[in-house]
Amino acid sequence: MDTNWDCLLLDCRLASLNDNGRPYGTIDSAAVAWKDGSLVFAGPQAELPAAAKSLARQVESLGGAWVTPGLIDCHTHLVFAGDRAQEFEQRLNGASYEDIARAGGGIVSTVRQTRAASADELLAVSLPRARALLADGVTTLEIKSGYGLDLTSERKMLEVARRIGSELDVSVHTTFLGAHAVPPEFSGRQSDYVDEVCIHMLPALAGSGLVDAVDAFCEKIGFTPSETRRVLETAQALGLPVKLHADQLSDLHGAALVAEFGGLSADHIEYTSVQGVKAMAQAGTVAVLLPGAFHVLRETRLPPIEQLRAHGVAMAVATDLNPGTSPLLSLRLAMAMACTHFRLTPEEALRGTTLHAARALGLGDRGRLAVGLRADLAVWDIAHPAELCYWLGGAGPRQVYAGGKRLR
Amino acid sequence: MDTNWDCLLLDCRLASLNDNGRPYGTIDSAAVAWKDGSLVFAGPQAELPAAAKSLARQVESLGGAWVTPGLIDCHTHLVFAGDRAQEFEQRLNGASYEDIARAGGGIVSTVRQTRAASADELLAVSLPRARALLADGVTTLEIKSGYGLDLTSERKMLEVARRIGSELDVSVHTTFLGAHAVPPEFSGRQSDYVDEVCIHMLPALAGSGLVDAVDAFCEKIGFTPSETRRVLETAQALGLPVKLHADQLSDLHGAALVAEFGGLSADHIEYTSVQGVKAMAQAGTVAVLLPGAFHVLRETRLPPIEQLRAHGVAMAVATDLNPGTSPLLSLRLAMAMACTHFRLTPEEALRGTTLHAARALGLGDRGRLAVGLRADLAVWDIAHPAELCYWLGGAGPRQVYAGGKRLR
Ligand SMILES: [Zn+2]
Ligand SMILES: [Zn+2]
Repeated sequence: MDTNWDCLLLDCRLASLNDNGRPYGTIDSAAVAWKDGSLVFAGPQAELPAAAKSLARQVESLGGAWVTPGLIDCHTHLVFAGDRAQEFEQRLNGASYEDIARAGGGIVSTVRQTRAASADELLAVSLPRARALLADGVTTLEIKSGYGLDLTSERKMLEVARRIGSELDVSVHTTFLGAHAVPPEFSGRQSDYVDEVCIHMLPALAGSGLVDAVDAFCEKIGFTPSETRRVLETAQALGLPVKLHADQLSDLHGAALVAEFGGLSADHIEYTSVQGVKAMAQAGTVAVLLPGAFHVLRETRLPPIEQLRAHGVAMAVATDLNPGTSPLLSLRLAMAMACTHFRLTPEEALRGTTLHAARALGLGDRGRLAVGLRADLAVWDIAHPAELCYWLGGAGPRQVYAGGKRLR
Repeated sequence: MDTNWDCLLLDCRLASLNDNGRPYGTIDSAAVAWKDGSLVFAGPQAELPAAAKSLARQVESLGGAWVTPGLIDCHTHLVFAGDRAQEFEQRLNGASYEDIARAGGGIVSTVRQTRAASADELLAVSLPRARALLADGVTTLEIKSGYGLDLTSERKMLEVARRIGSELDVSVHTTFLGAHAVPPEFSGRQSDYVDEVCIHMLPALAGSGLVDAVDAFCEKIGFTPSETRRVLETAQALGLPVKLHADQLSDLHGAALVAEFGGLSADHIEYTSVQGVKAMAQAGTVAVLLPGAFHVLRETRLPPIEQLRAHGVAMAVATDLNPGTSPLLSLRLAMAMACTHFRLTPEEALRGTTLHAARALGLGDRGRLAVGLRADLAVWDIAHPAELCYWLGGAGPRQVYAGGKRLR
């Protein structure tokens, strides 16, 4: 066996998330190694080839630390200009959502500011948010458009998302969310805007290679199921995978709709019925749980966790980082909230930000620690992986590698 | 005017928290300066003495950043050995509190491990938790005993608390919480344990100068009001200020009880009645709100916020950092939770971790930015102080000073 490895980490415990019959796929007294960005060893240290320690270019003892796959945040809206902290304050001082909308607030203020910002300005304000996620051990993240709502501005958002990936040496997966809201210039002409999305915006952006997946906001206050269907059909015709903001505030059968298209994920899904869950199970559509918005909006309707478990639907957990309903800069905190609010177990939460989050992005090359997968991993000074969900705040991982490259 | 100042920070905005008629006591285009650890200037930059910029030993432009007082966490139990992450996991896997107690879990496991740890071990595991709080801009923190429950172990906890202060160059205020739980060796003899606390432990520790204040856990599952009264009377006889874990799970009139003793604070107070609020108002007792425990325990009964406002009771906000009910390592997150769960305004939350937290510790020399007070301050890259409560997670302040000394 060639052991000319790039890096070999010794004396650790792996939360491999492989099905080895132990919680978290735990491997004690383990080692992990990679070469050219891919894992070449992830197992008991006793099974290391004899020459490994002498031949690897870099060898380090982790002194008993835990190693997990790099975390994956599979649902964010982190590229935007202008936060909404003052609206948050106004609401706590008694202003209604209507008051704020009348004063030009809400999503239209984010759209206005995002349109007005140059690409460089947008990058400058978005990078610190991406860095905050990375500080928690995130090595892959999804970023949606949806605050531009015209071709030029949506393109700008997606290009900024790509630049974040190259600036920070992490994988960024882009999602086109043109059908997020109706822009002011289409006010009262929602169907015309859907035409614009389907006929002009999406084909153009897909042609530029800026779109890894397509999403829409299917909701009474968003787009109707039939409008959503047009968006999903357009994506399908372009060969792009789809996902959906589904059933967050009411049951419009959004989960079943996206499952019909073989969707990667149905996201939020607080109001999804058992029929929707069954459709997701059959299609292999992942349930992306977003406890940050649930928390901030003080919702009480829980996603159908028991049904998802019963039907074997994979559950992912993400930040939904956005300025209106989830200003959540920590994926660990999303995991903790998934446990406290949704009663996920810590192991479910960790699978939800690794293996299942990878599935929600259509990625088979990461999310576990196994030979041949990407060398995306985080090293934690903890005694047990449940600590990843137990502590609220506090220090992140002590070391992070993405594609074998050390990020911190 | 002598302007031989140690440090002068220019081009900033102050959330001074002084009553200057503006929200947050804001001062725009401001400067702040100190000498020998105390503020010598905190006001409009235009009012700086002419020679200040040339004579100050260090001058720095903050480029428009906001400056707040250093944050104060006035209620923590951060010195302990052994976290309870695995109990957290067991509960999410269906174990009841009784199951866990039968298996030796719960607070008795923390007591067992805290007793078994050497002082150095206890310091080593507690320091990272204190550092996590500091990363949020905390410059003063309270630390309670209460996991030792015998003289030797309580002494060890309080000594470790003092050492944390000197190791990290922050102010640590110690609170004796011998009446936190009944230790196993006094099982069935709760009143005898209260004797032990009042006759032996508290006088001895007070005599060693280890006790800045005295607290107790007055609750159906804790100590009765009459037992609590004995503890408070003992403290009073020793000249020590008192505070109380009051009315968290039921209304035992704990808030009124501690107010009767002129207490610094009544903490938790979800079940405090209007009579309790009135007693606090008359005594000047601060309401210390602890949204972390409320969150983790998924409580629904809110503290009487409107009554506290109506009667002018000062509200503080703290982490309650402890391994059982609030593994909360971030005071900013406590502020955000105080807004979301308790509907405090961001300004109330910031006063709650500065001015009112100082009052809850009996400290008149900090908690605002004003000449003569301690140079405890935090510099934030934000556009508006509401952001301190709006974001969940993310980077802390870019600079922190405690007593004029730069901590980060
Ligand atoms: Zn979203
Ligand atoms: Zn407490």
